[in-house]
Amino acid sequence: MSRKISTKPPSGMRDFLPADIARREFVIAKVTEVYSRYGFVPLETPTIENLSTLLGKYGEEGDQLLYRLLHRRDSLARALAADDVSEATLADQGLRYDLTVPLARVTAQYSTLPKFFKRYQIQPVWRADRPGKGRFREFYQCDVDITGTTSLLAEAEVCGAVAEVLQSLGFDNFTIRLNHRALLRAMIRAAGIDVAQEGTALVAVDKLDKIGLEGVVKELEQRGIEAEQAGSLLGLMCCEDLLDPKSELHKLLAKIGCRNLMQWTVSGISAVSDFSEEELETRRNEMLLAYLARLLPQGDEAGQAAVKELTEVIGLLAHTPAGAHVSFSPHLARGLSYYTGAIFEIAVPDFGGSLGGGGRYDNLVGMFGKKDIPAVGFSLGLERILVVMEDRKMFPDLKVGPEVLVCWKGVSQQDVLKVTHALRRSGLRVEAYPEKTRKLGAQLKYADGLGVAFAAIIGPEEVEQGSVTLKHLTSGTQERVALGDAVDEAIARLSS
Amino acid sequence: MSRKISTKPPSGMRDFLPADIARREFVIAKVTEVYSRYGFVPLETPTIENLSTLLGKYGEEGDQLLYRLLHRRDSLARALAADDVSEATLADQGLRYDLTVPLARVTAQYSTLPKFFKRYQIQPVWRADRPGKGRFREFYQCDVDITGTTSLLAEAEVCGAVAEVLQSLGFDNFTIRLNHRALLRAMIRAAGIDVAQEGTALVAVDKLDKIGLEGVVKELEQRGIEAEQAGSLLGLMCCEDLLDPKSELHKLLAKIGCRNLMQWTVSGISAVSDFSEEELETRRNEMLLAYLARLLPQGDEAGQAAVKELTEVIGLLAHTPAGAHVSFSPHLARGLSYYTGAIFEIAVPDFGGSLGGGGRYDNLVGMFGKKDIPAVGFSLGLERILVVMEDRKMFPDLKVGPEVLVCWKGVSQQDVLKVTHALRRSGLRVEAYPEKTRKLGAQLKYADGLGVAFAAIIGPEEVEQGSVTLKHLTSGTQERVALGDAVDEAIARLSS
Repeated sequence: MSRKISTKPPSGMRDFLPADIARREFVIAKVTEVYSRYGFVPLETPTIENLSTLLGKYGEEGDQLLYRLLHRRDSLARALAADDVSEATLADQGLRYDLTVPLARVTAQYSTLPKFFKRYQIQPVWRADRPGKGRFREFYQCDVDITGTTSLLAEAEVCGAVAEVLQSLGFDNFTIRLNHRALLRAMIRAAGIDVAQEGTALVAVDKLDKIGLEGVVKELEQRGIEAEQAGSLLGLMCCEDLLDPKSELHKLLAKIGCRNLMQWTVSGISAVSDFSEEELETRRNEMLLAYLARLLPQGDEAGQAAVKELTEVIGLLAHTPAGAHVSFSPHLARGLSYYTGAIFEIAVPDFGGSLGGGGRYDNLVGMFGKKDIPAVGFSLGLERILVVMEDRKMFPDLKVGPEVLVCWKGVSQQDVLKVTHALRRSGLRVEAYPEKTRKLGAQLKYADGLGVAFAAIIGPEEVEQGSVTLKHLTSGTQERVALGDAVDEAIARLSS
Repeated sequence: MSRKISTKPPSGMRDFLPADIARREFVIAKVTEVYSRYGFVPLETPTIENLSTLLGKYGEEGDQLLYRLLHRRDSLARALAADDVSEATLADQGLRYDLTVPLARVTAQYSTLPKFFKRYQIQPVWRADRPGKGRFREFYQCDVDITGTTSLLAEAEVCGAVAEVLQSLGFDNFTIRLNHRALLRAMIRAAGIDVAQEGTALVAVDKLDKIGLEGVVKELEQRGIEAEQAGSLLGLMCCEDLLDPKSELHKLLAKIGCRNLMQWTVSGISAVSDFSEEELETRRNEMLLAYLARLLPQGDEAGQAAVKELTEVIGLLAHTPAGAHVSFSPHLARGLSYYTGAIFEIAVPDFGGSLGGGGRYDNLVGMFGKKDIPAVGFSLGLERILVVMEDRKMFPDLKVGPEVLVCWKGVSQQDVLKVTHALRRSGLRVEAYPEKTRKLGAQLKYADGLGVAFAAIIGPEEVEQGSVTLKHLTSGTQERVALGDAVDEAIARLSS
């Protein structure tokens, strides 16, 4: 046996020690409670899925980040004996990459599920991604989804559930960014960009925060999209900035010589004038949607329908805990390729990434070769929530571990077990010092280090009396009491 | 996209639908509650471990059952470009195979852990084994372990905890089989078998239930162990049967011409005579241990020490919930190669396999190249417990899913959301029928199928009044009440 085995977990993976678990379970309990109250029921799917289930659902990058399981024994021997040995021949199973594709598989598989299947799922997923702050290779997602309906009530339900989870955890200043896949496509069309370049265009716009407006235009030009079109796309996707004639965007479009700029500015003035000053604060989303409806060609039915759908979603969200947090964000893209309608993402001011995201995906279940079943869902990232909550010190004092350590001297191990079990029967979390020591002091010191509130000390006298000496460690006060109900009372007295 | 993707989970893996999860969580909650009361603290380790951590810990068969993760990108390209392409070059990470080796790694890694680390861990493990009843390729283990001490109090604690878990789940007739690795080795020595053949001998004896006494002798002969030695080994390992001169074992040893038979029979009579008739019932374990101490050479210090240790463990267990269930079983072997002291296994009458097992492993942490840390643990198999509990119908009625379905007609979706959230605020689990329908009947029928207790019906009148009509589905009685506190009262009234 090598003497140099690393004892660290692999890169991007973590060990969770008791205090970590207490925080994780605190969050998971809140998530479960809220999701259940919203009528969602739990589902769990296997860690290992067939690659035929996983491949082609997450886009090309997703496929590359999948963990694949090496064939074993005969299958491996056959694969290695073949002329062509490759990733594709060496594995046909992989690790769960998200919770949405497994849900789609489950929805296609079980005919006993309710027509409107409202499920929550809290499980780890694995991605061979570069690790970073709040980004791991094994991480938990907390998903809610509703399958079987295109009703926008479903959008309202998943957004409402997620917002209530965050509120119950103590978050107040979070934003649920909202956009629509069909609207993104309509903006690309309206900017005169070929729909075949949709993916390319969205990847570039997604870098806006990092590389700025001019950076995006440059990047789009490198990908064969003219500055005029790039500018138009930015104008549409960041149309809120167009309302301010002094904005960077305004200047950029003027510099590029964007033909639409004048007309768009006039439309903006007109859109704003439909709302009172107060309404511009309280009804920002509706105003922006109305503005964008004017910027898009009136004949673009898909685009206009998307605007109408988002307006309706926002109207519904007003009656859920998500209402005050929703923000129409026409430049929100979301990477996963399976979305078809509304898309969501949660942002908080002090964390770069999103705390979660989701959207409507009406074609994913149909990919499994059975009938199409529409669906919409929202996924919270447990680790990111934990990172922010730890940074902001949002956790209450979470008790973990034993409350009492049984310390003993001059008695038998059988006596120790008798007392230990008597204390446990009164519901206390009790550990017994396992080894014989010459001095009680060492045991009391160990009790201190362990963080228990009480030491239960037994010696020959206590054994003879059927009693125990309870010592409150922080105050140092102690009482000798009979085993049984007296213990509860003494614990309460000494703790106060 | 292929139209023929299988939607079943891979072989040996399972989807857990809501009712399954309710049963799993019921058991996990009991396990967690008892383990915590025994002073154990939670630990979780990553699904993926380095193969250097896993290999060589579980014996040859274990190594073969490990799931290995295929290298990716550059690492894969390098592996494929090499002259020698094999399982060893294609992977350096694998899936968690048990919870004991990760604990050993964690114990070696973190210097901040308490000296006596009492941890519980409830997580899935993966083995590419042949699936069977209660045997899956992904399954949960519920482990308790205590590191840092050789005190037998630790054996008593883990056995006590596991016994209390089973009792709290409603099990009464289970047996905790107890044996000792050093005792097994002493019996092999005493039978005149080369210690190098220990593994071989134990594998053969392990098949006793399947192939019978003569089958074991034949199997041992095939492996080069003489019938005389094989008989002696069986005589020692099944010494309880030697006490009955009419037993199959007695006949077999007579047939083989076992030289020890006469002396062993006399020792048996003498051992039994030390105990009263009543004691033979209540102190069977001590009597058998005393008998075995006579059968082993008096000069075999390791063997005699193991007998003494087991006697002590049994004395301690008498003061724990395990006391009434422990049964000294000198033929119990346990497959895993890392055990060094006492070993345990749980058997129930109506299930072939064991519900769990464990033992002392004082050298495993040291394998990670740092100091030796002794340890002892017990592992419960969640799935096997579930299988037996389902067969025996041991589960209470577990409520899962929403309690109320909001049914609506002639009102807006915004009204639906208002009422739905008002009901949720009173703590109810509430689902809203998501789609507009022409008839309420369809929604009520859906509520029935969903298994909710109540339909909350809203129409234009209810909206105007700020009320809701609550219909108790099984009785058909209904009441119209104002939203708010009146709802709780009506729910209580209608449920009674």
